[in-house]
Amino acid sequence: MPTINDIAARLGVAKSTVSKAMNNADDISESLRKKVLETAVEIGYEKTRNKKNSPRKLCVLVENMDYKSPSGFGHDLVLGFEQMAVPAGWQADAVMITNELQEQTSYEVFMLSHRYEGSFILGLSLLDPWMKDLQTAKTPAVLYDNYIQDNPFVSYVGVNNIEGFKMAVSYLKELGHTRIGYLGGDMNSFISRERYQAYLSAMEQHGLATDETLTGHSYFVSECTHKYLPVLLEHQVTAILCEHDLLANSVMVHCMECGYKIPDDISIIGFDDAAFSAFTQPPLTTIRQNRNALGRCGYYALASLLDQTFISSLLLRAELVVRESAGKAK
Amino acid sequence: MPTINDIAARLGVAKSTVSKAMNNADDISESLRKKVLETAVEIGYEKTRNKKNSPRKLCVLVENMDYKSPSGFGHDLVLGFEQMAVPAGWQADAVMITNELQEQTSYEVFMLSHRYEGSFILGLSLLDPWMKDLQTAKTPAVLYDNYIQDNPFVSYVGVNNIEGFKMAVSYLKELGHTRIGYLGGDMNSFISRERYQAYLSAMEQHGLATDETLTGHSYFVSECTHKYLPVLLEHQVTAILCEHDLLANSVMVHCMECGYKIPDDISIIGFDDAAFSAFTQPPLTTIRQNRNALGRCGYYALASLLDQTFISSLLLRAELVVRESAGKAK
Repeated sequence: MPTINDIAARLGVAKSTVSKAMNNADDISESLRKKVLETAVEIGYEKTRNKKNSPRKLCVLVENMDYKSPSGFGHDLVLGFEQMAVPAGWQADAVMITNELQEQTSYEVFMLSHRYEGSFILGLSLLDPWMKDLQTAKTPAVLYDNYIQDNPFVSYVGVNNIEGFKMAVSYLKELGHTRIGYLGGDMNSFISRERYQAYLSAMEQHGLATDETLTGHSYFVSECTHKYLPVLLEHQVTAILCEHDLLANSVMVHCMECGYKIPDDISIIGFDDAAFSAFTQPPLTTIRQNRNALGRCGYYALASLLDQTFISSLLLRAELVVRESAGKAK
Repeated sequence: MPTINDIAARLGVAKSTVSKAMNNADDISESLRKKVLETAVEIGYEKTRNKKNSPRKLCVLVENMDYKSPSGFGHDLVLGFEQMAVPAGWQADAVMITNELQEQTSYEVFMLSHRYEGSFILGLSLLDPWMKDLQTAKTPAVLYDNYIQDNPFVSYVGVNNIEGFKMAVSYLKELGHTRIGYLGGDMNSFISRERYQAYLSAMEQHGLATDETLTGHSYFVSECTHKYLPVLLEHQVTAILCEHDLLANSVMVHCMECGYKIPDDISIIGFDDAAFSAFTQPPLTTIRQNRNALGRCGYYALASLLDQTFISSLLLRAELVVRESAGKAK
């Protein structure tokens, strides 16, 4: 097991210098501190020893997601995590991470420099720099709605999308719908890929035809509503499944602007059950993911990794929340 | 919420009679007791109230699997479950269940009559009567290596078979194998279906061809070795993946009887890392599932269900254990 001496030897500096760098002392330059931490990660130095009585620390790393306001998508994810971690004796910090931060500092160096023993990570796309780091990282990470195939130190927590879309398609079929379209985000997101596959799989299981003219994908909601939605409507879909509720709401607004009544002319179903979804016009039928429970499961998976129990995936059941945006097919 | 009065009214008996039946009193006939319990389940009576100071109870239900001897496949699954449940204050009973028991008594009646609040179930095939009961059961159950699609009160715990087979195929490919056969159990087992699909998916991901002549399935190990193995050998496979270690060991023995050297002439990889697998001749390379960890996860999933957190699936990472039964392709 590499020690602080090995880092000092590798860099040709005194052990006390390494120690100062590790402890964030004021009289060490930022560039030397970074070099020390990067060397620590490179030679496999596992963790900085905690100062006596200093708390052990975990973090929730959040990108592209509001978690501070109670209506923010990430709020209950962070809360659920903290509700488990804090009583178990951990300090749990929620931290916003940007693409720039990821480019400047590797995941392992970031974790080591803040003395975080493990992370719960929300909102990374497949293009984020840390997704590459996580393929080989040894500091445990639990990814919400993201999956790393070959690294046992990383777990995937989310809802079972396949079950969710099967429920939604089954519900629409009972209402008489057979031409069911799909609108979703771009394919640089793990979850966009998963949900689109789940839609295709659910349609196939229910014996309903799909073709590309009935689906559209874009990172931009406006591209979905302005470019793809008109094509779906032209091809006479009677229902549209949307990858997330924000998109579903925009689709409803746009349909109504074009003179369609919801759900009389067209049924819309979302995914997530966001805080606003009960208050859209009409209230949105959606596939719910229990974000507080997901946060709790995120902690459980992380505690398991720290205990050498290597969870690959932990998926919650999805739940269909029936409101008023889907009705009988015309 | 239905009460004991409702059961009494439905059957036209006194409340005290229902109470006696619930409490296993001596002066109640077995047939009346059964009728009371079945009515309780029918009208949705949720649980018998515990007598003061009587412990709350969970059970591990085991079919077709030895769990009593330390080398038994189920031993560590039961142990891991108990290691979590007992410190949390539960009484945890391991109980063998037969097909006859399942035919005579429904799952819900069995659970209610023994005051079990939840179960961890090992070894059911898709044809077992309780698999049907579990589609609608409200008493939480966690299934090891079994999955019920539509009931949120049932969770699936196991290892990620897809990851396991990807590791094994990747390892064989590195050793130069391209003609890789598969032998497994019959298709009335959820896990047999899963592992066969995992084999096909791993071969496809690695760009290796499969066809039906290179695979065989039977409930009986001897049918795999006598009927299918000769066909695989005739078609010049250089490696065989087996669904479980017992089968892998029989395949090795049979190959050696036919004059093949292992691994010089043919490589064999198993699945499970059973207690005997380090001591076969040669020691078996296999995909390990950590059964103690799976038992612990079984408890976690059950505790989550009891807490209204509906886990669909919790899958552990598989691990390739390299021993001596697989080597370079000829």
